[in-house]
Amino acid sequence: MTKISLSDKEIPTHYYNIISDLPESPPPPLNPETNEPIGPEMLKPLFPKALIEQEVSQEKRIEIPDEVMEIYKRYRATPLYRATRLEKHLGTPAKIYYKYEGASLTGSHKLNTALAQAYYNKQEGTKTITTETGAGQWGMALSLATKFFDMKCLVFYVRLHYKQKPYRVSYMRMFDAEVLPSPSNQTNIGRKFLKEDINHPGSLGIAISEAMEKVSDGTIKYSLGSVLNHVLLHQTIIGQEAKLQLEKDDEYPDVIYGCFGGGSNLSGIAFPFIGDVITKKKKVRVVAVEPESCPTLTKGEYKYDFGDTAETTPLFKMHSLGSDFIPPKIQAGGLRYHGAAPLVSHLVEKGYIETMSAKQSDIMKAAKIFTQTEGILPAPESAHAIKGAIDEALQCKKNGTKKTILINISGNGFLDLKGYEEFLDGKLEVK
Amino acid sequence: MTKISLSDKEIPTHYYNIISDLPESPPPPLNPETNEPIGPEMLKPLFPKALIEQEVSQEKRIEIPDEVMEIYKRYRATPLYRATRLEKHLGTPAKIYYKYEGASLTGSHKLNTALAQAYYNKQEGTKTITTETGAGQWGMALSLATKFFDMKCLVFYVRLHYKQKPYRVSYMRMFDAEVLPSPSNQTNIGRKFLKEDINHPGSLGIAISEAMEKVSDGTIKYSLGSVLNHVLLHQTIIGQEAKLQLEKDDEYPDVIYGCFGGGSNLSGIAFPFIGDVITKKKKVRVVAVEPESCPTLTKGEYKYDFGDTAETTPLFKMHSLGSDFIPPKIQAGGLRYHGAAPLVSHLVEKGYIETMSAKQSDIMKAAKIFTQTEGILPAPESAHAIKGAIDEALQCKKNGTKKTILINISGNGFLDLKGYEEFLDGKLEVK
Repeated sequence: MTKISLSDKEIPTHYYNIISDLPESPPPPLNPETNEPIGPEMLKPLFPKALIEQEVSQEKRIEIPDEVMEIYKRYRATPLYRATRLEKHLGTPAKIYYKYEGASLTGSHKLNTALAQAYYNKQEGTKTITTETGAGQWGMALSLATKFFDMKCLVFYVRLHYKQKPYRVSYMRMFDAEVLPSPSNQTNIGRKFLKEDINHPGSLGIAISEAMEKVSDGTIKYSLGSVLNHVLLHQTIIGQEAKLQLEKDDEYPDVIYGCFGGGSNLSGIAFPFIGDVITKKKKVRVVAVEPESCPTLTKGEYKYDFGDTAETTPLFKMHSLGSDFIPPKIQAGGLRYHGAAPLVSHLVEKGYIETMSAKQSDIMKAAKIFTQTEGILPAPESAHAIKGAIDEALQCKKNGTKKTILINISGNGFLDLKGYEEFLDGKLEVK
Repeated sequence: MTKISLSDKEIPTHYYNIISDLPESPPPPLNPETNEPIGPEMLKPLFPKALIEQEVSQEKRIEIPDEVMEIYKRYRATPLYRATRLEKHLGTPAKIYYKYEGASLTGSHKLNTALAQAYYNKQEGTKTITTETGAGQWGMALSLATKFFDMKCLVFYVRLHYKQKPYRVSYMRMFDAEVLPSPSNQTNIGRKFLKEDINHPGSLGIAISEAMEKVSDGTIKYSLGSVLNHVLLHQTIIGQEAKLQLEKDDEYPDVIYGCFGGGSNLSGIAFPFIGDVITKKKKVRVVAVEPESCPTLTKGEYKYDFGDTAETTPLFKMHSLGSDFIPPKIQAGGLRYHGAAPLVSHLVEKGYIETMSAKQSDIMKAAKIFTQTEGILPAPESAHAIKGAIDEALQCKKNGTKKTILINISGNGFLDLKGYEEFLDGKLEVK
C-alpha cells in the first residue's frame, strides 16, 4: 500500500509529553537579571495559563481539547506514504516512508500548534495574538487559527522572506491578519535595525523581539511557532499518527530524518519514537538535518543564550550561534534561527538525536528528485529531511542493507516556487 | 461528520459515460471542409487510439487502468466536506457539501484526466505530449503525468496567466516540462498574433492552435484538459465518489453548482447525478456558473464552431462566443474559453443543466468568505461554484427551506494569491 490512512476514530486523542519519560529534565530557562530559574509569573504576560502549565508539565499525556480536535479532523490524520517511486528511482533496498503534513489546510505542520494555541488564548480572553514568522508557514497557520477562534492576528514577517514569498502575505491577509515586514517601524527594536539598514533582511530573532514588544495588558498575547516545550508537545500528534500508520504495514523505523530550524517539525515526527528509546522499548536513530549556512546544532555552542536578538526573552540552555547571528539568505526561511529548542538540544546532548548539515544546492536537488518521483513538491525546509533519507537509502544500496527510513514532509512547496525557480535557473544566492 | 472519507476499496473502479444513458446522442463534430461528421482517422494524428475510442464510446462503464488507479490512490478518494462553518456564518438551514479536488497532488481536478491521458499515450508509443493551459492547473497536471509515465511535455501557457501566475511555470519546470508563453514565436499561428501585438495576452483558443501545430509523426501527440468527451469522462470519478460519500450521510443533493469554463469540472461533479435524472431515478438541479465577462453558456450561440482560434480543429456543436473572442483579463484563467464542451451544451439544451454568470468582484468576495470559514483557499475558478452555493443558501434562509447543496472545489488557490492580492488591494482589472 503506497498511502496509509487512519480513520477519524484512530486519530490520537492526546499530545505526548516526552519530558515525562526523561530521567533528567532539561535545564530550566533563567531570568537574565538574576540567573535564577524563571517562575510562571515571568511568562504570564506572554502566554495564557494553560500553555504555561503545558510548558512545565510532567504529565505523559495531555488531552487535545474537543474544539481543537474538531478542526484537526478537517485535515488529520495526514497520510503516511511509502515512497515507492523514489525507492525505485534510487534502486535502494531501503524502505522510505514519509508523513505528509503539507496536506494540512495551510500547507504545513504549523497548524497543529496554531490551533491549540489559539484555542487556549481564546479561552482566557486574548483579543489579539502577535507573532513572528520566518518562511511564512507559521504566520499562515496562526492567521487561520486566530480567525477560526475569532481573534486578531499581528504578524512580523522576516523581511527577506516577506519579499521572497509574497504570496504568503496575501494568504495571511485573506484571513484579515495584519502583516508587517520585519524589522518594521512599528517597534523600538525594529526602528533600531532599520536605522542601521533600511533594507535589513531581518531574522527570526529580530521578528521575535518585535512581536514580544507588542504584548500588552493581558489582551494582546504572544505566540511562538517553535522552540518552546508546549509547541513541540502539540506537534507530537504527527509522530503518534505515523507510528499507528507504520504498524498497519508491520513496520517500525530504523532511522528518522527531520529538518531542523527551531525544532517543531523534528520533535513532532520523532518524539513519540524517542520515547520508545528512552523507555527501552525500541531502538531508532534520529537525525536532525540543518542548513550548512545556519548550523545551530552542528556548530553552535550548547550554552545559555537569548531566544531573540533584542535580548528580551529569558535565557535558554540551547545550541546557539549567538543571538546576534543573522543567517545567510537561504530559501528555507523556517530554518534560519540562531538557536534551538532547549528540549531538542538536551536530547542531542544525551545522545538521543544525531545531527548533520547540508548545502542548499544539494537540498534543492533532493527536492527535485522527490517532486519528480513522488509527485509532491516539498517545502525547502522539508527537503532537508529528504536529503537525509536519500543519502541513507543510497548507503543502504551500497551496503545491501534493508533499513526502514521515516521522514516528515512538514510542508508543501507551492508558495516556495520562486526559490525553486532560482534553483532551476542556477541563480541561488547561497550555494 | 465534517469530513467524509472513502477507503481505497471504495474508490470507483470505472469512469461513468453519460452518453450511454442519453436517449439522443449529442450532434457529432464535423469536418469543416465537407461539413460531414468526422471519422476517427481525423483524430488519429492527435490522440492515441484508446482515447479516440473513449471519445465515441457507448459503454456505460469504462474501467480505470490499474496503472492509473495506482497513482489515483496517492490522492484519491479526495475528501467530501460538510461546510458547517460556512453554513453557520450564513445562518442558513441549507446543508452545503463540497468535494475537495484541490487535495490532488498538483492541486486541482485536472490530474484525474492527465494521468489517464498520459497512460494511454505511453501505451501507444507517444514520446512527447503538447498542450495548452489557461490558468496553468492543466499544465501542472500534465507535467506531472508525463513525467510519471516517462514522456516529455510541451506546454503553451496563455501569456496573460503565464505572467499572472509565474509560480505555475516553475512548478511545471520542476517536472522538466518545456513551458512557452502563448502566443509564442515557435508556431506560425503564434507568430501571427505576436506580429499584431508583441504583448498579446493570448487565449485558450490561440494556445490550442499552437499546441496542435506541434503535433508530428505519431510520436508528438496532443492533449486537451477539457471540452472533449473522453476528458469529461475521466472526471466522473469525482461525482461518483461524492455520491458514495453523501450516502454515508444519508444525503442526496437537491442542487449542484459547478464553475464552467470548458466543462470538465462541472461534468466531473455532476454527470453521475445527471445520469440519475436521465434514468429517472432521482431529481437534482445542476447549475453551471460562469464569469460574466466570458458568458459562453448564458450569452453564446448554440452552433457549430471551431474549438480554437486558428480554426484548425473540427467544428463542434456548442455554445460559443466566436472562435476569435478574446476574453477580458480575469483571474479565473481556467474559465477564459470562447466555447463549451459539446456534451455540456447538449445537456443545457435538453434542460438538464441551468446556467448563470457572476461578476469577478462577487466571485472574489465569495472566495474570501469561504476561506475564512472553511479554512480552504479555493482557486478563483472554483469560487464561481461557491458563489452559486452561497446565493442558494441565502435564498434557503429567506424561504426557510432546507436544501442540500453540492459543489466541487476543483482546485486550491495557493498559486492564485497574486490575484487575491489585487482583490484585497481593490486593484482587480475586471470588476
